[in-house]
Amino acid sequence: MGWRGFGSDNHSGVHPEVLEALVAANDGHVHAYGEDPVTARAVDALKRHLGQECDVAFTFNGTGANCVALATVCRPWHSVICPATAHINCDEAAAPERLAGVKLVVVETPDGKLTPTLVEPALSVLGFEHAAQPRVISVSNVSEYGTVYTSDELRALADLAHEHGLLLHVDGARLANAAASLGCGLSEITADVGVDLLSLGGTKNGLAFGEAVVIFGAARTHDLVFVRKQLAQLASKMRFVAAQFEALFSGDLWLRSAAHANAMASRLAAGARAAGVELTQEPQANEVFALLAHDRVASLVERFHFYTWRESAKHGFDEVRWVTSWDTTVEDVDRLVDALP
Amino acid sequence: MGWRGFGSDNHSGVHPEVLEALVAANDGHVHAYGEDPVTARAVDALKRHLGQECDVAFTFNGTGANCVALATVCRPWHSVICPATAHINCDEAAAPERLAGVKLVVVETPDGKLTPTLVEPALSVLGFEHAAQPRVISVSNVSEYGTVYTSDELRALADLAHEHGLLLHVDGARLANAAASLGCGLSEITADVGVDLLSLGGTKNGLAFGEAVVIFGAARTHDLVFVRKQLAQLASKMRFVAAQFEALFSGDLWLRSAAHANAMASRLAAGARAAGVELTQEPQANEVFALLAHDRVASLVERFHFYTWRESAKHGFDEVRWVTSWDTTVEDVDRLVDALP
Amino acid sequence: MGWRGFGSDNHSGVHPEVLEALVAANDGHVHAYGEDPVTARAVDALKRHLGQECDVAFTFNGTGANCVALATVCRPWHSVICPATAHINCDEAAAPERLAGVKLVVVETPDGKLTPTLVEPALSVLGFEHAAQPRVISVSNVSEYGTVYTSDELRALADLAHEHGLLLHVDGARLANAAASLGCGLSEITADVGVDLLSLGGTKNGLAFGEAVVIFGAARTHDLVFVRKQLAQLASKMRFVAAQFEALFSGDLWLRSAAHANAMASRLAAGARAAGVELTQEPQANEVFALLAHDRVASLVERFHFYTWRESAKHGFDEVRWVTSWDTTVEDVDRLVDALP
Amino acid sequence: MGWRGFGSDNHSGVHPEVLEALVAANDGHVHAYGEDPVTARAVDALKRHLGQECDVAFTFNGTGANCVALATVCRPWHSVICPATAHINCDEAAAPERLAGVKLVVVETPDGKLTPTLVEPALSVLGFEHAAQPRVISVSNVSEYGTVYTSDELRALADLAHEHGLLLHVDGARLANAAASLGCGLSEITADVGVDLLSLGGTKNGLAFGEAVVIFGAARTHDLVFVRKQLAQLASKMRFVAAQFEALFSGDLWLRSAAHANAMASRLAAGARAAGVELTQEPQANEVFALLAHDRVASLVERFHFYTWRESAKHGFDEVRWVTSWDTTVEDVDRLVDALP
Repeated sequence: MGWRGFGSDNHSGVHPEVLEALVAANDGHVHAYGEDPVTARAVDALKRHLGQECDVAFTFNGTGANCVALATVCRPWHSVICPATAHINCDEAAAPERLAGVKLVVVETPDGKLTPTLVEPALSVLGFEHAAQPRVISVSNVSEYGTVYTSDELRALADLAHEHGLLLHVDGARLANAAASLGCGLSEITADVGVDLLSLGGTKNGLAFGEAVVIFGAARTHDLVFVRKQLAQLASKMRFVAAQFEALFSGDLWLRSAAHANAMASRLAAGARAAGVELTQEPQANEVFALLAHDRVASLVERFHFYTWRESAKHGFDEVRWVTSWDTTVEDVDRLVDALP
Repeated sequence: MGWRGFGSDNHSGVHPEVLEALVAANDGHVHAYGEDPVTARAVDALKRHLGQECDVAFTFNGTGANCVALATVCRPWHSVICPATAHINCDEAAAPERLAGVKLVVVETPDGKLTPTLVEPALSVLGFEHAAQPRVISVSNVSEYGTVYTSDELRALADLAHEHGLLLHVDGARLANAAASLGCGLSEITADVGVDLLSLGGTKNGLAFGEAVVIFGAARTHDLVFVRKQLAQLASKMRFVAAQFEALFSGDLWLRSAAHANAMASRLAAGARAAGVELTQEPQANEVFALLAHDRVASLVERFHFYTWRESAKHGFDEVRWVTSWDTTVEDVDRLVDALP
Repeated sequence: MGWRGFGSDNHSGVHPEVLEALVAANDGHVHAYGEDPVTARAVDALKRHLGQECDVAFTFNGTGANCVALATVCRPWHSVICPATAHINCDEAAAPERLAGVKLVVVETPDGKLTPTLVEPALSVLGFEHAAQPRVISVSNVSEYGTVYTSDELRALADLAHEHGLLLHVDGARLANAAASLGCGLSEITADVGVDLLSLGGTKNGLAFGEAVVIFGAARTHDLVFVRKQLAQLASKMRFVAAQFEALFSGDLWLRSAAHANAMASRLAAGARAAGVELTQEPQANEVFALLAHDRVASLVERFHFYTWRESAKHGFDEVRWVTSWDTTVEDVDRLVDALP
Repeated sequence: MGWRGFGSDNHSGVHPEVLEALVAANDGHVHAYGEDPVTARAVDALKRHLGQECDVAFTFNGTGANCVALATVCRPWHSVICPATAHINCDEAAAPERLAGVKLVVVETPDGKLTPTLVEPALSVLGFEHAAQPRVISVSNVSEYGTVYTSDELRALADLAHEHGLLLHVDGARLANAAASLGCGLSEITADVGVDLLSLGGTKNGLAFGEAVVIFGAARTHDLVFVRKQLAQLASKMRFVAAQFEALFSGDLWLRSAAHANAMASRLAAGARAAGVELTQEPQANEVFALLAHDRVASLVERFHFYTWRESAKHGFDEVRWVTSWDTTVEDVDRLVDALP
């Protein structure tokens, strides 16, 4: 099909090592719904990164993972505090409200990231019968603005959450990119800092499909299996999800792919700046947000297949988003840079 | 992994022709969420079987397909009339109630199949403010008891439904097996007889994952795309679902696989009867229901990996289910028959 | 307005003593939402009948009470086991599915009453990931067929429920009539026999509106207040619900009214039988179910405003329901009897 | 009970004329669920104010009315655009999300009022599969900040809504106060300016309980009756809701009470300002928002039973809310004013 662009890390296909594993899993009969040896090995692989004190449930997609995670711990009168830009708020068609059955309480942020100071006002309704009761603080790491939470920032949010009886959820559709950016392991930005619920991305890290819900420590509950089933996120031929995850996490493929994507974004950011393009956020992972003159956007989109984030973000300029992936090449980047501004 | 059994058609893997197509789809970038050429071709392939007057939306799994179909046409005070044995009633963990937001009104049947006579009493509440309002009649073809609805039987149910302002939904997780059993095309048991909503199975017909919701004729609505998205059934890298469907339906693979599975079930049924085993339903597709002496079940399950359907269905006997698949071999069948009763 | 009939105990108005209390509550300002002295007194009055180990929350109507009770203890993948004839199944327009977010699993009964034997098969799915998980056994006392559960029968159901980790809910829209029928106090058919959740009727016992949710013992949870609020069952001017309950339960008005209604039903049953009318259920409270020749029904309904329960329950005969109330008189009954068969 | 305060118009009791009507309705038997002559008369009375082109459904409370109105016209992937301060967002414990099944999209406002300019950005997602689809613009008139929408302002919002296929909902818990403030009739701020859905308040206008959902013109649908029933807002002994509404709207009681409450708020506002108190909103109906020195609040609350709206709204000052009612007297107001600042 052939074209290559910067629209999304889900415009890319499957990493060859992942595809090979998927093909190799096609051998004989196994029990369905995750009662198979591939799934057991994939869960083990993940636990080597995340620690033993967690439960893992594979799902089909990211909206599914987020909703399963939230539905497991929330009752219908609970609310989830998240940035206004959160994927769960903007890009999931009210799935959290319907599938997880929660109210979202949104907080404006400058860079897509929550802080304790931004969250605290939303906690004032705790105990007030007339208001939905905050139950979860939800952040995306990498955030929807390509910014990354450090371990310390996550720890501060987890502490705030736990102090008030809430839980901390991380939408980690690009968690590998966050870890690669920080130069740390996955547990250092999850289990070790008090994260309770994780949606761990696979698709954007090179799978054909597949995400994982991980619940840590005291938040663990057998309810998870019923929620996943009820929300239609339980694959019958689970081995084909699990084999992909095993390929990603049994070695360092997750990190190689993410680090590569991040490096391509850095190269793109540097090139764009050198070409006089203003960036609206400091790129920390595999996304670059930039201002382009409105009348330049259409022709660039035609060649490079990216999306406008906010029209008229600045007089005469649109804010656009460029995403790099495991398969973005130096040549891909340089072709875009050469076309700028 | 190696073992082979009769537990379910989702214990089998992926048909080699399907897997080849999935691998071949891994080429360059394409737009996500179904805006890609593979998806367009897969939809075209399906429409050649089902007619042009339909909308097609691929989903991840069967529960997802059923819930998307029902959610598209039902409001929360609607009910769905189905057999007590229906997959949506017994095996989806109340997903229809939660995701589609409907009440199920269940009807006892001798063979897993609804008839107009069985359905009519449930229609008496139409217009009664205090009762959930029937909106859909839902049948499974093949039924959960391995029996098959003929075109005439479906037409009678569709007529009854339409006469009262209801719609007819077919859970076609094994629709290919039904068509193979009847020796007809897919449209003859769907579009041509007044079916409004179809969940078309892929997984049990040899895919790694993937089902399709099809809405016919006057029931078509653009709401379908929002429902699929909200119910977390919209794949980002859709091409990998679509490529499998294209492999299945661009030629006759769907029929070859289903006819083979049905033939293996026939052979098994005949062999079992010859061995003195009583069958509880007349096998019409790829499932055989049989009575086994209770103290024989455990050792047979250990070798052949099938499930007990009803314990103590008859004094001293359990009812068990054997399912054949696209990859069941004559040798597989004969080994089981040799072990009977 | 003037007519009098046997259609329902909610065709009657308000008992004069209740109305007087409602009027008397209209004095000055009080805090809203139940933070007022009338509500405190009404709760105390109820606890004198039900024991101190319970929480009480007043609601507007019976559907509201049932849904608040079930929603407090159920998660979305839970099911509620109830008779097929249950009000929650037949007469609440799928409110339990929507408001309480549960699946109903219905059981056929001869007399509207569950027994452990009837319930047990529905428990076989406990722990099975693919099925909604039974969480509550729900019975109506008085049942929808006018029959009454004894303390022993309730105890047996509670024991079964608790043995499997379930709870027992009683829809007590006519609990006063049950107690009057049995000659016992309210706690003897609730707290003392292991009932966990109670919907306590007020409206049919002579209030203008108002029911109460009562949660007993270990099932008590502060979540109740959030559920009631979210389900729109929290009255702002609560004192006007509470004053009615106080009038009903601070003395013996609840019992006088119920006993009178029961006595009127007994008189009607005896008179009907003497007139040659066949009853379909043994009347135990304030409802009588009878067979009337189909061509007699219309003219009797016109005079006595009752409802047909099942058309053609027997060849040429409809099953009809007669309900007596706190305000039914001997003359009312005798006029109906005189018109029979 | 005796105290009097400024906490809420639901701290007041029932207007004597309303209570008299409720008592008078207690005569003989009538059919339940609104099939009675009182309800017919009450609906007629309302239609004389609102026009004949509407459907009216009485509910128990305001949250119920709002949810019934929204649930009637929204599907689960729809959103409702409302001010951040909206009652449906802040004070209904996520009932709209759960009962109406919608997502709320909140807009910050300076005075509690939406304008087309404030709403338009939220409409940009129309047609975008990944976002909840805006279906309703919801405003409160009187707003939660005591401000009032004029006919022209409502017309502009209705035009914007209709231009994009949306509907305009008015939460009219205090609609009578808005009309009294504007010196217009009820239809001039509803039917005449394009309002589609109205929650018409009764409780705060002097009823014991009772609100009404009104659907106008092309938005009318028979679905309304099923929604009201399913959301547990259908009173069995409806006559006792209806009689109160008849008392309120058959003459001018609604207006007398509202105008009186407004006059008392004006007097309070003028007195407060004269006492040097700064008001944060221009009082237009029966609510006054004022800044009080933080260390003055507690003792004033003890005497006058009002609520703090925002702590530390200004350095050292809390924003408090005073509400007047049909039964607020000049003496009540003057006692508060005398105690200020």
